Amino acid sequence: MTDYRTFTTDDAMRFADEHSGLFGDHSKLSCEEFGDGNLNLVFRVINDKGTSLIVKQALPYARCVGESWPLTIERARIEAEVLLKHRKLCPDHTVEVLHYDAALAAILMEDLKDYRILRTELVAGKQFLHLAPQLATYLANTLYYTSDFALTGPNKKQQVGQFLNPELCLITEDLFFTDPYCNHERNNIHSEIRNDALQLWHDEALQAEVAQLKAGFLSQPQALLHGDVHTGSIFINDENCKLIDAEFGFYGPIGFDVGSLTGNLLLNYLGHFGLTQDTETRQRHQDYLLSQVQTLWQEFEKQFKQLMSNECREPTLQNSLYQQRFIQQVFRDTLGYAGCELIRRTVGLAHVADLDSISDGTLRGQSERKALKLGRELILQRNELAGIDQVLTLVRYLQN
Amino acid sequence: MTDYRTFTTDDAMRFADEHSGLFGDHSKLSCEEFGDGNLNLVFRVINDKGTSLIVKQALPYARCVGESWPLTIERARIEAEVLLKHRKLCPDHTVEVLHYDAALAAILMEDLKDYRILRTELVAGKQFLHLAPQLATYLANTLYYTSDFALTGPNKKQQVGQFLNPELCLITEDLFFTDPYCNHERNNIHSEIRNDALQLWHDEALQAEVAQLKAGFLSQPQALLHGDVHTGSIFINDENCKLIDAEFGFYGPIGFDVGSLTGNLLLNYLGHFGLTQDTETRQRHQDYLLSQVQTLWQEFEKQFKQLMSNECREPTLQNSLYQQRFIQQVFRDTLGYAGCELIRRTVGLAHVADLDSISDGTLRGQSERKALKLGRELILQRNELAGIDQVLTLVRYLQN
Repeated sequence: MTDYRTFTTDDAMRFADEHSGLFGDHSKLSCEEFGDGNLNLVFRVINDKGTSLIVKQALPYARCVGESWPLTIERARIEAEVLLKHRKLCPDHTVEVLHYDAALAAILMEDLKDYRILRTELVAGKQFLHLAPQLATYLANTLYYTSDFALTGPNKKQQVGQFLNPELCLITEDLFFTDPYCNHERNNIHSEIRNDALQLWHDEALQAEVAQLKAGFLSQPQALLHGDVHTGSIFINDENCKLIDAEFGFYGPIGFDVGSLTGNLLLNYLGHFGLTQDTETRQRHQDYLLSQVQTLWQEFEKQFKQLMSNECREPTLQNSLYQQRFIQQVFRDTLGYAGCELIRRTVGLAHVADLDSISDGTLRGQSERKALKLGRELILQRNELAGIDQVLTLVRYLQN
Repeated sequence: MTDYRTFTTDDAMRFADEHSGLFGDHSKLSCEEFGDGNLNLVFRVINDKGTSLIVKQALPYARCVGESWPLTIERARIEAEVLLKHRKLCPDHTVEVLHYDAALAAILMEDLKDYRILRTELVAGKQFLHLAPQLATYLANTLYYTSDFALTGPNKKQQVGQFLNPELCLITEDLFFTDPYCNHERNNIHSEIRNDALQLWHDEALQAEVAQLKAGFLSQPQALLHGDVHTGSIFINDENCKLIDAEFGFYGPIGFDVGSLTGNLLLNYLGHFGLTQDTETRQRHQDYLLSQVQTLWQEFEKQFKQLMSNECREPTLQNSLYQQRFIQQVFRDTLGYAGCELIRRTVGLAHVADLDSISDGTLRGQSERKALKLGRELILQRNELAGIDQVLTLVRYLQN
């Protein structure tokens, strides 16, 4: 154990060399830092044969959220431990962690250099048919095997304690559930939709539902979530996709992870009303996105149901009527959290390129308004929508 | 810090003397051990003026549950810390802890020698009008102030971690939710109701609801529960009542504590069909019990609502529509957990004197059958019963 110090490129090279057998000839390594520098340092260490690894180090502060905001480097432990656990449960779609050093808050991990960030690709109108099936597999496996269906009470409680993650959860509690529904200084509201945002702040029916969703986020440790499954945390190439950035991981409601991803696919869908002018191209991409939303839920549900019926270790929870109701509740939660994601990415602090990169202000306003409208309806109607097909019908209906 | 050793009466005297200013003249102390010796040693230390204190020491095993079952002495920490916290929140109705020693797993606490065990009194047909209002106050205050309404996310998470209590929760998970619904060797079934018990094991509709209630127990840390609010954990006299024995404390669903107590009042109600032969005496006592069940919920609901509307520190949860729905859900949970308590106390391992002390086997069978029937209906109908008055109507209807 050494004391914490901020890495230089030299430190990062030494760290990578020391904790992997990939390099050998130290003198031939090179290293560049390419993180945004607000939350973490991210280094790529590469040798003369082109073999490379990533060194990620948590900084003891985060400038991304409002003011200078001190953030514990404990989040590097959360990130490393969630990724290690998720990788055991779903090796194909979780980035590999090779080493974690607690004192340095540094993680050595595989370099996904043949992958690209999913959000960027979707904004550019790229399509990947393996997206939804693979992510459904990731979600079903990581969430099922960390749930009460698979773990004993004591084992689960030990993990709940291991992943309390109070500091990063608080960020979500505030940014996701609180700020968008009041006039908070952290909000970031495009002038075109100022009036629509105002309506949120006086919508008591909506706020009651958001309160319930927040209460679930606070007090429903159903499974070990990734905690931040947006399309910027997913790397993809033509064959595969992998999750990174698990520092928001904690024990929470299963629907939060599924809903965050669903919400992000819908944000891209709505964004393309402004991003893509050619009607036919747009239609094709939007059809693709809705089919991914559909497949994501259908595959997730199918796999989770199979796991419940074949792998349930908790006798009381083997009851099939209960399992049916459980997955139905996860569906409702998924819609609710997806709705929250649509709203907070439109009026809250942290926006997404799917909307923000629409250059025409009026078009951007139109997409943003659709996001608020769809978000609201998903939250309010989540207990009535009988299945994913009804959700798609609602999405299509509201776009007009 | 000293190492753990089992206390002798002499050790207990020294411990009491050392950690209180009540005694002074050590030579004049006396001490007796009067616990049942299965889970804990319980000593009364008394001086020549009649001043006394209790020393409770956890033993590293528990013979009460099936075989010789090792149990961590950590439970003494849980008990001491829950009692200290609850006493801050409701000093009138929580026993006072004067000192806790982690290494010795020993607690020095006030002696409630002017009090008697509530269950014994109720079995004897005693009535206390202050029972329900005072316990409602205890429940409303301890549960409200440890909930998401009152605590910040990080503060609450710290406490969730402090009170995970995996070992004792597992006992409840098994004895309360699993054993009664299958042919488990730990069950203790009176021959008269063997067939009724058998029906439980094949009642899939009931088991689906019990699964949901168990999932809530496992994964809904709403507030710091006492965890074992039966009438044997309550001491009472003509003016006051106090809770003891908080070793099952953990962060769980609010309705579990309210429901456990409600279930125990109903068990006494049903027991008196066999315990009291004189119809008029019985009627009077049973009317008393139902009025206490009614007052318990009404007062709890009133106080909890007041706290939500006046003391809510979490902006999102201040929404009054949400608060209305929240208390309604607590009501449903209360009925569900009360139903589980009725069933597990009838066919599970740990029985209650309210039923077991009915000397006539046939009469006892009748009361037990009523307990199973009422338990089942409370669980199945909990989402339809619109208020406590409907519950009382159901109780009266099912007794015939």
